[in-house]
Amino acid sequence: MFRVFRGYIIFMNKKLKAVVLLSGGLDSATVLAHAVKKGFDCHAISFDYGQRHRIELRCAKRISRQLKAADDLVIGFNLRKWGGSALTSSMKVPKGGLKSGIPVTYVPARNTIFLSFAISYAEAIGAKDIFIGVNSLDYSGYPDCRPQFIKAFAKCANLGTKATDEGWKFKIHAPLQKLTKAQIIRLGTKLGVDYSLTNSCYDPDVKDRACGKCDSCRLRKKGFAEAGIKDPTVYQI
Amino acid sequence: MFRVFRGYIIFMNKKLKAVVLLSGGLDSATVLAHAVKKGFDCHAISFDYGQRHRIELRCAKRISRQLKAADDLVIGFNLRKWGGSALTSSMKVPKGGLKSGIPVTYVPARNTIFLSFAISYAEAIGAKDIFIGVNSLDYSGYPDCRPQFIKAFAKCANLGTKATDEGWKFKIHAPLQKLTKAQIIRLGTKLGVDYSLTNSCYDPDVKDRACGKCDSCRLRKKGFAEAGIKDPTVYQI
Repeated sequence: MFRVFRGYIIFMNKKLKAVVLLSGGLDSATVLAHAVKKGFDCHAISFDYGQRHRIELRCAKRISRQLKAADDLVIGFNLRKWGGSALTSSMKVPKGGLKSGIPVTYVPARNTIFLSFAISYAEAIGAKDIFIGVNSLDYSGYPDCRPQFIKAFAKCANLGTKATDEGWKFKIHAPLQKLTKAQIIRLGTKLGVDYSLTNSCYDPDVKDRACGKCDSCRLRKKGFAEAGIKDPTVYQI
Repeated sequence: MFRVFRGYIIFMNKKLKAVVLLSGGLDSATVLAHAVKKGFDCHAISFDYGQRHRIELRCAKRISRQLKAADDLVIGFNLRKWGGSALTSSMKVPKGGLKSGIPVTYVPARNTIFLSFAISYAEAIGAKDIFIGVNSLDYSGYPDCRPQFIKAFAKCANLGTKATDEGWKFKIHAPLQKLTKAQIIRLGTKLGVDYSLTNSCYDPDVKDRACGKCDSCRLRKKGFAEAGIKDPTVYQI
């Protein structure tokens, strides 16, 4: 697009860039659709960190294409070097239903690592807006999903980059923070997300079918049921 | 070591674990020596991030052995995917002396990324102390070296991990924060650091010799001169 002003052709690409953390799950797919709808030029970033459910990376690519992200980048590193989680070690994924406390699927400092890469990427491409799908209602009890953490990270991001010196600020958007899983699914459906492309399961089988029993599958199932929307997930059972 | 108490043999391994960020440069080598001296069981962590001066990884291994770290781990990821720095792209390393402002050798959010991995590692192995060689006097003007950033990161680390829920705290130690380069060199020399094993140069030649002209080489040279200690670095000129 362009317009002509005093004989000059002026290109009108006013879209602001944003970096969107895209895991390939239901929440981050919804967040990407939300950021696209808001008019951002969305640069998706995913992580190949040694996760058990590596299928999510293929899902991330498909979602990024379905929702027309400007770019989809994968950063690889190996959190299995120290494990400490059922998602990055041989520890079993619990399937007995949600319990109180921090579950063993919590990956030490995962969102801190993910957000750090996101601000590095954002700073390099000139984006000031970062979108993340954390949620503090229907979630798994992870400390790095709570609002206080996101707020503290934003402060840290602005001090540890050029932002403060150059007089601008990073904004960490967490649009799902106060939504239930059902509300997220309703929002995403309205925004045109194809949830059959997403994976939430922590422990899919060799045919990539969801287990239906891990915390993440339970929350997903409950969400679709409460939203009154058909769950397109292929379950093992 | 053990002692006998009421007929029971009690093992006395009271050494606390610490994670030490070890780049292979002068500062982090000094920090490792300091942490070892303080009695910590030091787990060194280094990063293979696409840096121009990859020689520092070999240096990190040698230093870790010289100073008897308990472990030395390397995490790899590719910051050249987005560059944004003379250390992670084909941009030239400036050699005209220190200027004001943030130099082009600043790597977007590098210390935020490094510290995020450090707390993930620390949480997994049960360490609460993290050591980093940032310094705000004789340094290169990087935003992620200032005390306010380190303080903000510590807050973020405690909120984004199990720390707050389990009632303990990460402590980020930055023992060089207020020292000049000369003071750091004097401290390290007293602690037995072999500085000939370290590399500070951003742009070494194919024979691993330091350029002697980049900001980092200049600070190093000046530091040794001011400390009145012979600089063991092999320079190209």
